[in-house]
Amino acid sequence: MASLNLAQKIISAHLADGKMEPGQEIGLKVDRVLMQDATGTMACLQFEAMGIPRVKVEHAAIYVDHNILQTGFENGDDHRFLQTFAAKYGIHYSKPGNGICHQVNLERFSIPGKLLIGSDSHTPTAGGAGMMAIGVGGLDVAVAMAGAPFYTKMPKIVGVKLTGRLRPWVTAKDVILEMLRRLTVKGGVGKIFEYYGEGIKSLGVPQRGTICNMGAELGATTSLFESDEITQDYMTRQGRPQDYKRIAADPGCSYDENMEINLSELEPMIALPGSPDAVHKVRDVQGQDVHQVLIGSCTNSSYIEIMTVAHVLKGKKVHPNVTMAINPGSKQVLETVARDGSIYNIIASGARLLESGCQGCIGMGSAPGTDWVSIRSFNRNWPGRSGTKDDKVYLTSPEVCVACAITGKITDPRDLGEYPNIPWPDKFVIDDSGIVPPAPAQYADTLEISRGPNIRPLPLRQPMEAILQGEVLIRVGDNISTDAIMPAGAKILPLRSNVPAISEYVFYWLDPDFAKRAKEKHGGFIVGGENYGQGSSREHAALAPMYLGVKGVIAKSFARIHRANLINFGIIPFEFQNASDFDLLAQGTPVTIENIVGNLKQGSKTMEATTDKDKKITLKVDLTPRQRDVLVAGGLLNYIRSTTTQ
Amino acid sequence: MASLNLAQKIISAHLADGKMEPGQEIGLKVDRVLMQDATGTMACLQFEAMGIPRVKVEHAAIYVDHNILQTGFENGDDHRFLQTFAAKYGIHYSKPGNGICHQVNLERFSIPGKLLIGSDSHTPTAGGAGMMAIGVGGLDVAVAMAGAPFYTKMPKIVGVKLTGRLRPWVTAKDVILEMLRRLTVKGGVGKIFEYYGEGIKSLGVPQRGTICNMGAELGATTSLFESDEITQDYMTRQGRPQDYKRIAADPGCSYDENMEINLSELEPMIALPGSPDAVHKVRDVQGQDVHQVLIGSCTNSSYIEIMTVAHVLKGKKVHPNVTMAINPGSKQVLETVARDGSIYNIIASGARLLESGCQGCIGMGSAPGTDWVSIRSFNRNWPGRSGTKDDKVYLTSPEVCVACAITGKITDPRDLGEYPNIPWPDKFVIDDSGIVPPAPAQYADTLEISRGPNIRPLPLRQPMEAILQGEVLIRVGDNISTDAIMPAGAKILPLRSNVPAISEYVFYWLDPDFAKRAKEKHGGFIVGGENYGQGSSREHAALAPMYLGVKGVIAKSFARIHRANLINFGIIPFEFQNASDFDLLAQGTPVTIENIVGNLKQGSKTMEATTDKDKKITLKVDLTPRQRDVLVAGGLLNYIRSTTTQ
Repeated sequence: MASLNLAQKIISAHLADGKMEPGQEIGLKVDRVLMQDATGTMACLQFEAMGIPRVKVEHAAIYVDHNILQTGFENGDDHRFLQTFAAKYGIHYSKPGNGICHQVNLERFSIPGKLLIGSDSHTPTAGGAGMMAIGVGGLDVAVAMAGAPFYTKMPKIVGVKLTGRLRPWVTAKDVILEMLRRLTVKGGVGKIFEYYGEGIKSLGVPQRGTICNMGAELGATTSLFESDEITQDYMTRQGRPQDYKRIAADPGCSYDENMEINLSELEPMIALPGSPDAVHKVRDVQGQDVHQVLIGSCTNSSYIEIMTVAHVLKGKKVHPNVTMAINPGSKQVLETVARDGSIYNIIASGARLLESGCQGCIGMGSAPGTDWVSIRSFNRNWPGRSGTKDDKVYLTSPEVCVACAITGKITDPRDLGEYPNIPWPDKFVIDDSGIVPPAPAQYADTLEISRGPNIRPLPLRQPMEAILQGEVLIRVGDNISTDAIMPAGAKILPLRSNVPAISEYVFYWLDPDFAKRAKEKHGGFIVGGENYGQGSSREHAALAPMYLGVKGVIAKSFARIHRANLINFGIIPFEFQNASDFDLLAQGTPVTIENIVGNLKQGSKTMEATTDKDKKITLKVDLTPRQRDVLVAGGLLNYIRSTTTQ
Repeated sequence: MASLNLAQKIISAHLADGKMEPGQEIGLKVDRVLMQDATGTMACLQFEAMGIPRVKVEHAAIYVDHNILQTGFENGDDHRFLQTFAAKYGIHYSKPGNGICHQVNLERFSIPGKLLIGSDSHTPTAGGAGMMAIGVGGLDVAVAMAGAPFYTKMPKIVGVKLTGRLRPWVTAKDVILEMLRRLTVKGGVGKIFEYYGEGIKSLGVPQRGTICNMGAELGATTSLFESDEITQDYMTRQGRPQDYKRIAADPGCSYDENMEINLSELEPMIALPGSPDAVHKVRDVQGQDVHQVLIGSCTNSSYIEIMTVAHVLKGKKVHPNVTMAINPGSKQVLETVARDGSIYNIIASGARLLESGCQGCIGMGSAPGTDWVSIRSFNRNWPGRSGTKDDKVYLTSPEVCVACAITGKITDPRDLGEYPNIPWPDKFVIDDSGIVPPAPAQYADTLEISRGPNIRPLPLRQPMEAILQGEVLIRVGDNISTDAIMPAGAKILPLRSNVPAISEYVFYWLDPDFAKRAKEKHGGFIVGGENYGQGSSREHAALAPMYLGVKGVIAKSFARIHRANLINFGIIPFEFQNASDFDLLAQGTPVTIENIVGNLKQGSKTMEATTDKDKKITLKVDLTPRQRDVLVAGGLLNYIRSTTTQ
């Protein structure tokens, strides 16, 4: 057998169905799953609907990290539901305040060579520890917990050779910003990025995690590093050397595509407001007044980052015109920084120490005021995601952030002087008391699940109709994110367990009347541009339109997770055969597609849509046989139930 | 001259108008003012409307502590407005994260014998340092900043003799809970409580502050302690021995009323859900399962409290079924606890360390889930204030709170073993970098004020009409708080700078259709029971009804601050001559009151209201000549402008 690259090795070790050829559908045996609260309540309800008594993966965990502001009863209801659900069904429950799922997973549950799927698009963070970690929809997690394989298309594997060594004040964040600069937010669709070469030896596991994390912004299926002595060292300091296993590409392996980045040539980078790929050198935009600085998120909130920030802040004060907040990635990070005493430098500087959690990154607090320049170490800056419409959010490294906080202007951190090279702690603080283990299986039957009024039953779709007919309800442009389709933020995110309520906010920032119109018209079609549904894995971006009666999405192209979510909820993702037909489908245009079930069953690769004046448009239907069956059944849950002997 | 008690001494030293006889209106020269963000934006707009270039008090400060979640652009807009306003007009600006106004004021700006008014009902906290500190409406602060006296009725002075000494695990919180048990939430209306006797020698300044703070829950005008060697010691550790001055009652002075509490006989107390005066012994309610524990608020978040909690938590874990959060009262508290290293014990226990600020106490986050038992070291537990309707909020000491957090049940802390007697730090961490001083006066002209879209112009009332006519828009019961009239919480509090928007939420929890009805009916009357408008000083509980066209409030009795706020905004506070007439004024009853201006000008002590079927009701109009002039003018701002030569 030919020598394999690392991604191929892990995939082949987990291959349950299909052939490992790019573009072919494959089924993968899932070792572990993670969920977070904003997507996980729905995943739990979906699992419950399958009627299986305990999860069938080797490890499952659900983390409360998104909905921790608790501005009403909804968050608390969700927390109790998840805790009692987890106890009953064999899932670990990470309490609010214990940290961001990806950071905690990296610390406590990442294992090289294992396959993890998670109902959060930044699940690939664990690739920093040599784990193949894929962001998916909640229903995919529910199905995996039921013991079924996870299906996806075999991606192309891109080898990214890192040479050289990062210079002082240049970080892993700059590596992934450079990737975004080169490839754009569409550049990773259908691909796995595998980083290798001498350059990786200067990157710790969480730093590798930063690069894998923001592979999500490239649209990648996942990103990966080999495990090596650096991984082993990290796991030893995490008190779990037994979880380490060497796994790396075979010598002489090849990749479907190749890239190279010389780390020595990078300098501090920053993404300008609007999109994570609007990347420039900090030097080129320095001097702009800054109003807000936020450090944290699953991208940049590990021990080394927070300690570096603490060191820079020592003896200094946040600029009077700046409000700066820090949310450490986990209780372990916070506790280790507190044990060291460096937490004092953060507090003394006047920085606002916030709880470990997603918070400002997902628009849960820390929203900027009108016209504020907000500098963040986060991963996404689509308009409005901060919680403020017309926001001006820049993405950069914690090092650039802290420099801006001190000076009050966009500042290249190389102007601060000597770089603090923070050493690793001998051992991280290890305390898993914030992760409540499930009840032993023998007690599971006796446990009751707490269901407050925010926990609403799961809506299900009927089997597929013979004819799809309706108006174009909205037409949107390229790179529409799932944040644009189904916004988050402090007002909307608490409704994730309540589909009827959250559906009122579909396309809320783009078109606040969308939900009303969709209901009045008894559903219809969404028309999109390129890379429709990029970003967050939230399946509510499919589930809520389904609830509103959306029958199909017609786009120039789709982002991977959202496309899978549409299928999972029984919405056909149609692609334009001719991209120019996009212009024919303005809002209000009537669309009819006939013989849907027949075409799906026959494996037709195109279908014909009739618009007004009997104009015909050809739509591509690039679906696997399994996906066709799922769509005919009216979604994955119906499909699973119809194919499983109860 | 007869010997004076302490309250009389301070009042006489500040008397600018009137006679110091209980029930008479007095005008007091104001030394200092404080504002917070939720009431202060309006106070600033009111000050601005007077056209005065700089504040005329010796010290003014505005603290951002209520609106710090930033779930939308509104908070940030307010912060920038306040910072730029403060710089221009001579006000200190305390940044978000720097702490709760009352705690920071106690630490940095309290001065024995001085008179402070603050646009927050818990302003009396500074009475712990021998300052006379009175909670008032924002407009009263604005007028004081313009150099005018503060008008109120001379209260009765109640001497509260404290004997004995608190036993271990019994705290200042139990002293004030005992006061509430004896007197109820109406028991302090029109009174100042002056604490004296050997018992005060075992209470530090912040502990005295706790007692004065919750005097607000008695409805008191303020509460006071003398300044003594304990005060001097506190101020020395605060690095400002020069601010200390001995001030105490004259020997042989007398009080209008007298009370006595033997501290040695107290034990841990807890107020049951619904009202701060539903006080019971913890022993009598112990054993109940607990879901949430919150420690903080302006009542109980000083250094000794947080350190005691940290000490109890050392080596222990928060119960798996409990979520516990702590918000320290100020950056100084947090920083001093961090300097000591004890912050580690808090973090390691699994408690959620939140920002310094009001937060859960004002329903800004930490809302309990449905049916949760929530144990809090706060000061108020009116239904819904937590952000959750039908909440179950208990009020108690931090000591009881931490005991509940560990055991997961309501627990008497005496069961925990030996009491940790925390010593004072040699010196608190002193760093005022979070308090931005105003710009020097010579630059004031050149400074621009930032006004984001959340800063809406101040609505003004027209001069008083001759006839008030309308329906009873709502009739409510006894002890209706300003939280019930004008709710706070994460959804509504950010609208405090935007009266048209916030007015939609008047009586929101009691009757969500109130605003709609008030507008449809072009205003009308509110009918209330005893102690109408207790609690928070928020003038929006008068301003927003005024905006909706409310012409008068007819109640059995009024709480002091709200009554003053109604007058300030041109709404006449009518009292029933016969309380039983309350029954005649059901919702929808038409009411006409004629010759309003004439009656006000003539000093009539009653007016006659005609209801349906020509039924007559006699209403008391207990107003001073000055208040009558204010009402005729259509509110205090109109009055000030008409009496000031521009």
